[in-house]
Amino acid sequence: METPINLYQNTQSHLNKYSSIVFDSYPPQMGICNGELISQISNPDSPLDIEEFRRQGHMIIDFLADYYQNIEKYPVRSQVDPGYLKSRLADSAPYHPESIETILNDVEKDILPGITHWQSPTHFALFPCSMSIPGFLGEVLSTGFGTVGFNWMSSPAATELENVVMDWFGKMLNLPSSFLFSGGGGGVLQGTTCEAMVATLTAARDQMLRKIGKANIGKLVVYASDQTHFSVQKAAQISGINSNNFRVIQTTKSTNFGLSSDSLHSAINADIDAGLVPLFLCATVGTTVATAVDPLRSICGLAKQHEIWVHVDAAYAGSACICPEFQHFLDGIDGANSFSLNAHKWFFTTLDCCCLWVQDPNALIKALSTKPDYLKNQATDSNRVVDYKDWQIALSRRFRALKLWLVLRSYGIVNLQKFIRNHVKMAKHFEGLIAKNNNFEVVIPRNFSVVCFRLSPFALTGNQKIMSSEEDLNEINRKLLESINSSGRVYMTHGMIGGVYTIRFAVGASLTDYRHVELAWKTIQEHADTLLNDLCV
Amino acid sequence: METPINLYQNTQSHLNKYSSIVFDSYPPQMGICNGELISQISNPDSPLDIEEFRRQGHMIIDFLADYYQNIEKYPVRSQVDPGYLKSRLADSAPYHPESIETILNDVEKDILPGITHWQSPTHFALFPCSMSIPGFLGEVLSTGFGTVGFNWMSSPAATELENVVMDWFGKMLNLPSSFLFSGGGGGVLQGTTCEAMVATLTAARDQMLRKIGKANIGKLVVYASDQTHFSVQKAAQISGINSNNFRVIQTTKSTNFGLSSDSLHSAINADIDAGLVPLFLCATVGTTVATAVDPLRSICGLAKQHEIWVHVDAAYAGSACICPEFQHFLDGIDGANSFSLNAHKWFFTTLDCCCLWVQDPNALIKALSTKPDYLKNQATDSNRVVDYKDWQIALSRRFRALKLWLVLRSYGIVNLQKFIRNHVKMAKHFEGLIAKNNNFEVVIPRNFSVVCFRLSPFALTGNQKIMSSEEDLNEINRKLLESINSSGRVYMTHGMIGGVYTIRFAVGASLTDYRHVELAWKTIQEHADTLLNDLCV
Repeated sequence: METPINLYQNTQSHLNKYSSIVFDSYPPQMGICNGELISQISNPDSPLDIEEFRRQGHMIIDFLADYYQNIEKYPVRSQVDPGYLKSRLADSAPYHPESIETILNDVEKDILPGITHWQSPTHFALFPCSMSIPGFLGEVLSTGFGTVGFNWMSSPAATELENVVMDWFGKMLNLPSSFLFSGGGGGVLQGTTCEAMVATLTAARDQMLRKIGKANIGKLVVYASDQTHFSVQKAAQISGINSNNFRVIQTTKSTNFGLSSDSLHSAINADIDAGLVPLFLCATVGTTVATAVDPLRSICGLAKQHEIWVHVDAAYAGSACICPEFQHFLDGIDGANSFSLNAHKWFFTTLDCCCLWVQDPNALIKALSTKPDYLKNQATDSNRVVDYKDWQIALSRRFRALKLWLVLRSYGIVNLQKFIRNHVKMAKHFEGLIAKNNNFEVVIPRNFSVVCFRLSPFALTGNQKIMSSEEDLNEINRKLLESINSSGRVYMTHGMIGGVYTIRFAVGASLTDYRHVELAWKTIQEHADTLLNDLCV
Repeated sequence: METPINLYQNTQSHLNKYSSIVFDSYPPQMGICNGELISQISNPDSPLDIEEFRRQGHMIIDFLADYYQNIEKYPVRSQVDPGYLKSRLADSAPYHPESIETILNDVEKDILPGITHWQSPTHFALFPCSMSIPGFLGEVLSTGFGTVGFNWMSSPAATELENVVMDWFGKMLNLPSSFLFSGGGGGVLQGTTCEAMVATLTAARDQMLRKIGKANIGKLVVYASDQTHFSVQKAAQISGINSNNFRVIQTTKSTNFGLSSDSLHSAINADIDAGLVPLFLCATVGTTVATAVDPLRSICGLAKQHEIWVHVDAAYAGSACICPEFQHFLDGIDGANSFSLNAHKWFFTTLDCCCLWVQDPNALIKALSTKPDYLKNQATDSNRVVDYKDWQIALSRRFRALKLWLVLRSYGIVNLQKFIRNHVKMAKHFEGLIAKNNNFEVVIPRNFSVVCFRLSPFALTGNQKIMSSEEDLNEINRKLLESINSSGRVYMTHGMIGGVYTIRFAVGASLTDYRHVELAWKTIQEHADTLLNDLCV
């Protein structure tokens, strides 16, 4: 970035660089034009009347604050039937305008019943999508500025702030410096892990095809475990990998459902023997169902021998690694090519905000860059800037770095660690409640803030008819979960792991407190009692 | 959608369906738990303290309203040098929290100088990214609800509102009913055209490979014109199309840079003769530089003979087609497979909001669906709902339908048509000013709200040295544009078309009024005079 090229020579010598340039007398001098025209079109119905913006903006803030205030009054999981909304709305858009007051009434009346309240403190389903004040404010600012930061030139601050916060965040996670801009790598904010996966897989694919020739695309093999998120398979589909060459490696309870490098080794060897070319492996820190952790060091070592690109997906659990006590889960990450986590899951930035770091940005750029003439500019030509459009699928991109910056500064490392630890402590508390009750069992040891549990076989002692099989036990747990979720008080989801139907209790919503954990536990017990009584009748 | 399956049987008979279910006595009954625990963790530093949310939320609204109030005081195109921000910020994230007041001061001091003000009324660059009050409010609401609507189940309202507004919008554009849910097709909101392009190209690719076999992926050919947006080429790269099989068909001034179906025909025949398989064609309504329109009817007719998937990219100009006088540009669209426009460009919805309609949703679903067990649910199994994750790359998706709904209702068809027509009238006015001045010329006839112009050869009469070549004229226009943009008062961008360096004047920012058009014209003339004088010295 230090090439001594003077951009914009002669063009801005009159401007006070590095300060907010303000044309104080600008507006009065503007519009020296045909007076007739001005009066014709001075338009109170402008799409952006500023006083109206202020009025309606304040209204929406109060609307949302009231929503949070009342959020516990709504059923967490929406209880509507398919098609509920169509009958409530008109068939066509209105010809005439309607007032914001009318519309917000309809949001309350027609939309809220169909919303599953992810921000509810008793939303323990899937993974959290964590809201926070600075995350929200950052998104609002970004929307308000309305910049489109596809390259440096289109809004330099959007790119440069992203460079800075990705290095900040990488350091907090104790990533090797080779993943940071300051160490020759770099980070980028994408929408979701799916996009990051397509971007890295495309980069890996093209890097390999440059060696073995484009005609060999049909030989490339992608590896994942049976616990890996399905976005890897989808990325493989999208990027033209032959679907016969997507390997799903079985995991077992013996490794707590982490990927075994022995199994991986066998799979790789079999493919090589068959004349195929191992390409890409997705390892996971915190799998979707069991939050299992794949052993990065042994996997990356093996992959390196075969020049396989390793992407580490830490969508949910990556955020925990800002706490030193969780950083051992990333041991061996220096052997990976890319690493991603979703800050919108457990880092308080609101959807969407996927953080992707790579050791070799050029691999991404070679696969994803395009250079149309109409985007040609001096900054790009100077090679002194990052043009993020070449690091991702999309051209247009919002100013996502703002919200991550606001979250980091508003809380500081100390509070962010506190929030994460508090969630983990609540999950641990819940796990303790489960462990102490003979009717229930913890299915897999907890790593982070997700507890996998179920009604245990002991709960059914004495009822031989029910205890006939593991399938029956799965069915009872399925019924228990549906019964709880239909109550609307608590929402959890399930996963199948090693053939076992498991209920997942994921702590991470920003409003969740111990009393909500206790409420969940009470609700679970009540529904279990009812179910068990019904079964015994 | 009418299969008579009763979802959630027995589970919600106690709930008053179709109304907002409220547990009035819920909060007081909650938290029947260990009192000691409650007092331990009742936490004023919660990431979502509601009164603090209200206070800071109002603060940010006023910050943005003030920003719009002062927006004309900033240079439209940021004037900073590469690397300006790094030196202003710390190397690492702060350990301790900072106040929102401090952070907003820094936004003003450090971020605003690095922002290119896309919402400025004198931003005439590229295409607009149009802000509006309801678009903004919709985005804020969506952020605040924090839902993750990947499938119907995860938040039914997010999916169902999207179904409804996509049919509303499709009707406004007079799309054939085969593109609407009500006619067997359907629409989906994606982030950007790039994503829509990857999704449709992947669908087309897999549809063809099911016929000719996966091993033939290397034979597939993608067609575009030399005016087509580069996202098609990028989508072809991503989806594994051999880069030798990406055909760029030259356009000429004789068709106003629209694609000629004769040229397309020749290209297709040549590929078939070479044993290749024509796959996908992107036609454009409103190309990126010249806003040219490809002749859909003849192109789609030709494509149909060869079973080529036609995607129509109307990213910018599609929005104009809500006005009957522009709908003829879509003649023949019934022969296309898919159609997209960016509502964030010229439909007041803020970035990002790409509207994609397809005639055959199953083609998308076959290419992009994945069915992990942990997302299994009754609604999906019933086939009565849309799961949008199977229509796009990403799993997680924001509730974008809200902002489109708010825009449609807040303005009504009547005002939206008025806004579009007003922008077109301003562009026409500017075109008239150019046409009347011998120093300038309109390079290509205007179709919508973009005027392509340049300093004309006549401006330089008498200066033989300068007039030596078309290259010199291009260079002078390049200098003129850089001079204008460096002033900070107006921002325009360029395009090369038919070898001619063209300055583009794109009207569409929500705050733009006739006085800003006049200011731009005055600025252009002043800079041209200075430049011409310097050349004559």
